[in-house]
Amino acid sequence: MNILGCGSALPTTRHLATSQVVDLRDKLYMIDCGEGTQVQMRRMRIKFSRLNHIFISHLHGDHCFGLPGLISTLGMLGRLGELVIHGPKEVESYMRPVLHLFCKGFPFEVRFNPIDPTKHTLVMEDHSLRVYSIPLKHRIPCCGYLFAEKEKEAHIIREMTDFYNVPIRMMQEIKRGADFVTPEGEVIPNARLTRPAEPPKRYAYCSDTAFHPSIIPFIEGVDLLYHEATFAECDAARAKETFHSTARQAAEIARDAHVKRLMIGHYSARYEQSLVLKQEADTIFPHTIAAEEGMKLEI
Amino acid sequence: MNILGCGSALPTTRHLATSQVVDLRDKLYMIDCGEGTQVQMRRMRIKFSRLNHIFISHLHGDHCFGLPGLISTLGMLGRLGELVIHGPKEVESYMRPVLHLFCKGFPFEVRFNPIDPTKHTLVMEDHSLRVYSIPLKHRIPCCGYLFAEKEKEAHIIREMTDFYNVPIRMMQEIKRGADFVTPEGEVIPNARLTRPAEPPKRYAYCSDTAFHPSIIPFIEGVDLLYHEATFAECDAARAKETFHSTARQAAEIARDAHVKRLMIGHYSARYEQSLVLKQEADTIFPHTIAAEEGMKLEI
Repeated sequence: MNILGCGSALPTTRHLATSQVVDLRDKLYMIDCGEGTQVQMRRMRIKFSRLNHIFISHLHGDHCFGLPGLISTLGMLGRLGELVIHGPKEVESYMRPVLHLFCKGFPFEVRFNPIDPTKHTLVMEDHSLRVYSIPLKHRIPCCGYLFAEKEKEAHIIREMTDFYNVPIRMMQEIKRGADFVTPEGEVIPNARLTRPAEPPKRYAYCSDTAFHPSIIPFIEGVDLLYHEATFAECDAARAKETFHSTARQAAEIARDAHVKRLMIGHYSARYEQSLVLKQEADTIFPHTIAAEEGMKLEI
Repeated sequence: MNILGCGSALPTTRHLATSQVVDLRDKLYMIDCGEGTQVQMRRMRIKFSRLNHIFISHLHGDHCFGLPGLISTLGMLGRLGELVIHGPKEVESYMRPVLHLFCKGFPFEVRFNPIDPTKHTLVMEDHSLRVYSIPLKHRIPCCGYLFAEKEKEAHIIREMTDFYNVPIRMMQEIKRGADFVTPEGEVIPNARLTRPAEPPKRYAYCSDTAFHPSIIPFIEGVDLLYHEATFAECDAARAKETFHSTARQAAEIARDAHVKRLMIGHYSARYEQSLVLKQEADTIFPHTIAAEEGMKLEI
């Protein structure tokens, strides 16, 4: 998982506007696309050609003003494959006129997948992954996204399949859990032929949102939770007023949802350092990770 | 004059998309506003509050995709005064829906001043400055801008006005060129009381354009000419095809227009270094300046 930007609305020289890229089995899934995202992709050497899906949380500029530039660049790079933009329906209202003015005659399609940000539903599914929406509580329609990796195939124990002379044509079935029956009729249980795959991973992205414990059932036990922490607890009133969270509130959500790891971000420009927010979260959820531009994290 | 970005359409880690800020008598005039301009303003410590006019050359993304972010930020900073965006009429078609979606209830007006990019006309005038359009030759309607400072008042020679006891109330007239008549009727010629003001400066911005000698009358003798030099002469065919200029062509325009200084920019991503373009221009117009991000230049 790559952090391209983790600042909030006002620009600073410390942070860029929000964007992340999930990298799974050689495919890239972008979440939000603030201004400057395409340049940051170049800096982090993230391949434009591997990106097919962009998930937008809501229609605030610091989460989507990078889309026109990124899509224009994909056009100039000669992209052919469809690009799908998932997000509240307002995303299409924003981007349609822009595409019309700037991207006429492009060699690829931009398809919009409008999603209802008030519901927890399946947004996208491919070979490796299911993505679900997570209803958040913000000033405008806004949702987070849950990335749930699919069950992987078991690993073949080569010594055992050799020993039992398992034919190549049966390997696929065995990877998927089948037992092997020898020509003599002996049943070799699958557990002797395979090692189980790593358990599938889950990543939840929750930005921007007021403190909103209703999301807990959707993110219960995820391997990594990204939760916004725009403010510190001393600015809790401001957080409430603007429908944002404090670092402490993010940590409370993480603790109550029993997530494995918590990462915070979307820092307000008023904080010179994210350390004060990390330390606040740490008191509730130890070893909180403070997102930084350029960070690459194994989930 | 401040260079915020001088790259071309494809993003690189070396250059940002085009934007410049002219700083005259405490007012700022922005020319073009590519993606990332607002962050670059922060980096260069250019004050958002002093900016009242933005001039857009044409509707290609690398010259205007920074507008939505910049205007949103001005709104968050509580700006009150009108912001005027000058440019071909397509600029309004692009920005109106964006303002409608993202900038409702902002405390300031954004006014569009549509200009005909095929004509050389007065675009804007204030106390210090007149700005004229320069018709360029590009794939879409596109114009450059000529910034012509107004005549400044002469400097009073204090020792002389003291000597002749010139009353304070007459100083303004004398600055503007009046002679002084003493109570005894002696005429003191203005030239003895004042030193002439510095001659007013002129700056011409020409990006993007094919080689187009028709612009020469409009930029004749300017103190500084910024002319795009997207390509080197070895890529002249590509320059012609895309309606851009080579460094050599930029220098030929500068030489034939007898400008005092030439600055080149809008470098194609294919060149690792702008030095090759500067050297090519130097053979025709010595001491060409190669624009770089963060550059501040006295005109």
